[in-house]
Amino acid sequence: MPLLNADRLFPVDGPSRATARDLYETIRGLPILSPHGHTDPRWFAEDAAFPDPAQLFVTPDHYVFRMLFSQGVPLERLGVPRVDGGPVESDGRAIWRLFAQNYHLFRGTPSRLWLDHAFSTVFGLEERLSAGNADAFYDHIAACLKLPEYRPRALFKRFGIEVIATTEGALDDLRWHRMVRESGWDGRVVTAYRPDSVVDPEFEGFVQNVEKLGELTGENATDWQGYLNAHKIRRDYFRGFGATSSDHGHATARTENLTSADAAALFAKALRGQCSADEADAFRGQMLTEMAKMSVEDGMVLQIHPGSYRNHSAGVMAKFGRDKGFDIPTRTDYVRALKPLLDAVGMEPGLTVIAFTLDESAYARELAPLAGAYPALRLGPAWWFHDSPEGMWRYRQMTTETAGFYNTVGFNDDTRAFLSIPARHDVARRVDCAFLATLVEGGRLDKEEAFEVARDLAYGLAKQAYRL
Amino acid sequence: MPLLNADRLFPVDGPSRATARDLYETIRGLPILSPHGHTDPRWFAEDAAFPDPAQLFVTPDHYVFRMLFSQGVPLERLGVPRVDGGPVESDGRAIWRLFAQNYHLFRGTPSRLWLDHAFSTVFGLEERLSAGNADAFYDHIAACLKLPEYRPRALFKRFGIEVIATTEGALDDLRWHRMVRESGWDGRVVTAYRPDSVVDPEFEGFVQNVEKLGELTGENATDWQGYLNAHKIRRDYFRGFGATSSDHGHATARTENLTSADAAALFAKALRGQCSADEADAFRGQMLTEMAKMSVEDGMVLQIHPGSYRNHSAGVMAKFGRDKGFDIPTRTDYVRALKPLLDAVGMEPGLTVIAFTLDESAYARELAPLAGAYPALRLGPAWWFHDSPEGMWRYRQMTTETAGFYNTVGFNDDTRAFLSIPARHDVARRVDCAFLATLVEGGRLDKEEAFEVARDLAYGLAKQAYRL
Amino acid sequence: MPLLNADRLFPVDGPSRATARDLYETIRGLPILSPHGHTDPRWFAEDAAFPDPAQLFVTPDHYVFRMLFSQGVPLERLGVPRVDGGPVESDGRAIWRLFAQNYHLFRGTPSRLWLDHAFSTVFGLEERLSAGNADAFYDHIAACLKLPEYRPRALFKRFGIEVIATTEGALDDLRWHRMVRESGWDGRVVTAYRPDSVVDPEFEGFVQNVEKLGELTGENATDWQGYLNAHKIRRDYFRGFGATSSDHGHATARTENLTSADAAALFAKALRGQCSADEADAFRGQMLTEMAKMSVEDGMVLQIHPGSYRNHSAGVMAKFGRDKGFDIPTRTDYVRALKPLLDAVGMEPGLTVIAFTLDESAYARELAPLAGAYPALRLGPAWWFHDSPEGMWRYRQMTTETAGFYNTVGFNDDTRAFLSIPARHDVARRVDCAFLATLVEGGRLDKEEAFEVARDLAYGLAKQAYRL
Repeated sequence: MPLLNADRLFPVDGPSRATARDLYETIRGLPILSPHGHTDPRWFAEDAAFPDPAQLFVTPDHYVFRMLFSQGVPLERLGVPRVDGGPVESDGRAIWRLFAQNYHLFRGTPSRLWLDHAFSTVFGLEERLSAGNADAFYDHIAACLKLPEYRPRALFKRFGIEVIATTEGALDDLRWHRMVRESGWDGRVVTAYRPDSVVDPEFEGFVQNVEKLGELTGENATDWQGYLNAHKIRRDYFRGFGATSSDHGHATARTENLTSADAAALFAKALRGQCSADEADAFRGQMLTEMAKMSVEDGMVLQIHPGSYRNHSAGVMAKFGRDKGFDIPTRTDYVRALKPLLDAVGMEPGLTVIAFTLDESAYARELAPLAGAYPALRLGPAWWFHDSPEGMWRYRQMTTETAGFYNTVGFNDDTRAFLSIPARHDVARRVDCAFLATLVEGGRLDKEEAFEVARDLAYGLAKQAYRL
Repeated sequence: MPLLNADRLFPVDGPSRATARDLYETIRGLPILSPHGHTDPRWFAEDAAFPDPAQLFVTPDHYVFRMLFSQGVPLERLGVPRVDGGPVESDGRAIWRLFAQNYHLFRGTPSRLWLDHAFSTVFGLEERLSAGNADAFYDHIAACLKLPEYRPRALFKRFGIEVIATTEGALDDLRWHRMVRESGWDGRVVTAYRPDSVVDPEFEGFVQNVEKLGELTGENATDWQGYLNAHKIRRDYFRGFGATSSDHGHATARTENLTSADAAALFAKALRGQCSADEADAFRGQMLTEMAKMSVEDGMVLQIHPGSYRNHSAGVMAKFGRDKGFDIPTRTDYVRALKPLLDAVGMEPGLTVIAFTLDESAYARELAPLAGAYPALRLGPAWWFHDSPEGMWRYRQMTTETAGFYNTVGFNDDTRAFLSIPARHDVARRVDCAFLATLVEGGRLDKEEAFEVARDLAYGLAKQAYRL
Repeated sequence: MPLLNADRLFPVDGPSRATARDLYETIRGLPILSPHGHTDPRWFAEDAAFPDPAQLFVTPDHYVFRMLFSQGVPLERLGVPRVDGGPVESDGRAIWRLFAQNYHLFRGTPSRLWLDHAFSTVFGLEERLSAGNADAFYDHIAACLKLPEYRPRALFKRFGIEVIATTEGALDDLRWHRMVRESGWDGRVVTAYRPDSVVDPEFEGFVQNVEKLGELTGENATDWQGYLNAHKIRRDYFRGFGATSSDHGHATARTENLTSADAAALFAKALRGQCSADEADAFRGQMLTEMAKMSVEDGMVLQIHPGSYRNHSAGVMAKFGRDKGFDIPTRTDYVRALKPLLDAVGMEPGLTVIAFTLDESAYARELAPLAGAYPALRLGPAWWFHDSPEGMWRYRQMTTETAGFYNTVGFNDDTRAFLSIPARHDVARRVDCAFLATLVEGGRLDKEEAFEVARDLAYGLAKQAYRL
């Protein structure tokens, strides 16, 4: 039995499965558009071999190590670096064995689908990983990684990636993007503008970051107008490296539309370090609207990724730092939160604001009605914890009837796990075909329409929404 | 291929589909009870021909024009009137073409189901609407509308409507209802009592409205007891035109049960225009309980439709006014909100309070447990954005296990789109039969029981709950 | 046609149904672990015959009588005792007839599944209960109840119960548990520690309860350290009667982690009766963390059952008292609420905290991400209103992808309705097999893995999580 079931994620009943297969057959080979993600541009710049299997699949993947941790495996034993630089496991094989002997924990999870997809399609491994074959897997993958066809650029081509966007901070010099460009390689790797460190008064080093923003742009960034100009200049710079979007990951979806004087006063207060928590939140909200206004000018797409309580565990944060699987979703309001921004620019022709959510209760209640009305608003795909078969299914079931398909933007993989990218797109394509097949078989859509929609969901909508 | 699939909305697997068909066959022809809606009584009074196809299907339907608007079609080009009386498209054919060339936007939406149902069953059109056949559709529908069998009363009969309720404000003179009655026509068109303009201190012209209420009833309506009496008199008047229900669409589900003295003081403050937002909300909440108490006396059903953030876009509101597709659902609490009313009258024999929701997260958590306990409380059907196949399915899945079927009240179409009424009831009947079929095939219900429940959901429960 | 469909709750399509059957066949006969419930230990101590059918199935079951009440049947007519001792129906047959003639109200509810299961498997009744056969049912069940094989201990064995946990208050003398033990009977009936009356400053008689806690333990329980010691001593005492868990049912999931001095001051304030509502909530929250710390020492599992608005109807509470079907779920936050406890002990090896929810919107958004990260946290099964086929299905769909199967703890029946216990476990086993079958047929899980998971969900995980 092959590791991957050819009909995986399709409906089980005969007619729907047959229709899903027909739809999928026409889109499975479409190029991958990855308009929002977190791969490391250095990979494509240097094109160095990936390190050992554990460094590829376990140690950097918070989906994987948090699941092992939740069942009592210490992060140190998985090689996750400590803040204090103290010792952690460095033997890739030992990490891999621990991973393999706990592989049953991933049953029913999307990580399991992604991992098996990579094992099978990238490395030709056709057994289920287990304690028994851990060493064989390790040796085989390690041997592959030494070969030129497993280098980042070769995999980029093999995966059929048409374009991939990485995400860089506003102060980043984009050196790796420059190196990619100067190398003459024809892979299309673009950046995205992520200004957290200079728009969030609660970000570590906010004031210094704003000063650095000024230095980089020649603007007096501690003055409100200078600060806005500096953003425009950096956005230009990012666009020079292919950026078509900015990205914003605040704790809430709050936006504001203050007068220029009030915004300037709030900015000044932020620079003095005197903002209350609420004022800091208001400033972040104001900057979303400012960014949207800049988008009206420069055509960049604005992405809002709200609603995560970051670094929930004080203990894990202290010992291992940020982004260690302890970002927990919270309830998120969009109706009141987005109103200031939408009142300001929601009708602007040419503007695209893409909203994501970790709070699925907002799909049918808030997000689909908003996206089904405001011309500037589109719905990002099922995100993060919901980037999964059930999550995608709920997304389509709860957004389509009010927002339709054409107020959504296709799939984003949003990952730093490079090898999971084809797997994630494949899951999305299969689930969308499955969903469309149930509409066809339930008499809600003609099959000929479904072929068109399937193609739009897999390719066309992302191309259009992200101006790729 | 006909435009409508005969098995649409039924389960795909063979046994469930066969059972759904069997159930549906016994209820598809039942008369339509439409106990809550917004059709225009003038149609039935004057029985004039409907204007052109665009005025019938596009310009007045906020489901339709907001979807087009969300994809960049200006409302002016769809003929939606401007507040300032400025020019908008008046050529029905031009509007229709724009609609037809964007018809793909409705894929997967209930609007598509309703429109196709009307095209096929009312007009005999069996192609999918598109840019290519837009003119043919337009010409055919326009020609039909000139015929006597397409007049409102003829369609009313053709649709098999046993009774339809419209909704009028408390100050309405019900002239069209009077005209229907005096015409001798035997179609049953009743009104419903909607007192927003005289119970909401924040409604435009509240004080004048209350004064007018006094004039209409001969009561001193600016005195608390006179005000309550005036409501009773108007409710009597409405019952004289068939009303069996009142309807209340506040932003929240808040109710209050103040002492008479406190209520009178709050009312006086409202008349002085001195209520805070919270006090205005409290007054609306108090009036829900007052209306429920009147219902105990006069037998009218109380309907609560909360949770919509009305006219969300400041720009659309300014340019095009109310009800232009920008009413966005918000989170709604029922547990604390309904307690004062339920403590006051929740055990009254003969009282029926019907609660609706736009916040589906309340179905299983709050509404089914409340309706499954309080004798006076029933659950309204899946509403508005959730008046759709997936919405109805979620409604049954999330309410049945705790509230059963018999604490629900059958289907309401809640529409002003007359031609969508048979389609909407047909969708509800199909989805309910599909749901029942899955219970039968899953061994949770006997087939003979399912026939009985199907009939109750399509007809019996509405007849009973709304005293029709 | 038998009353129970052999394939009930399995998927309808052929391949999934066949797989579900195969899985179920291997686990249907596994012993029942009932680690959290509310059966009366006196039953097993005295082993007396159950009274008449109405007293067995109707009068004590709030699922049953609240549904009848919701449709207008007075609780008095169902024999539910009044607080004032006034007259209620005492004729079991009259109550039973009323129940039987309203049996259609339970269509589509889990109560119907449980009742039919007991009628069929315990009493051999194979007709659907109705007004027509009410007396025949009554006579047959009443006759059975007189037989020795229908006594509690005989049913315990017949049901295949390996261990059952009851729940007793902290001040309970556990006399029935003592009597069970001293009887020499080999059925395993254990207690669980439920300290509401001595940890909740708003509980009736809180101060006297704390004083009694001191008397029982020889500690000065009005002193903070003495109070904590007294809890430890009572926990020891409960462990002496098999307890492996404590249970906490607060209105919210709030936890606190105060300094010892602040906790002591808050406790003193509670004893003086001076806590505000918020301070009382904080104290309950602090006690959750204290209990968790004791669990680290003594190995008892901590169960959190939050989010019920208890005794919602003032009228029913006044007339019939607590627990009469008017406990209504409310929105519950876990992310902020559990952080203090998790920061304090969330990484402790050997600690198990089991969180339940009545707010399903928290499954995918909050609970699965938390349980999929913190080693100490596990998810309790679908609870109360969600202890039902659809509820269990939503639970697996919304928790598995992020938390996996192994951060859940198998099934709890959580009931005082002894005869429903085998039915409830059977429902859970069937639904889990159905869910696993869809994963297998959808290519997400190997069938051989599914056999292993099915066994873990039915038996292994509960055994492990509750240390049984």
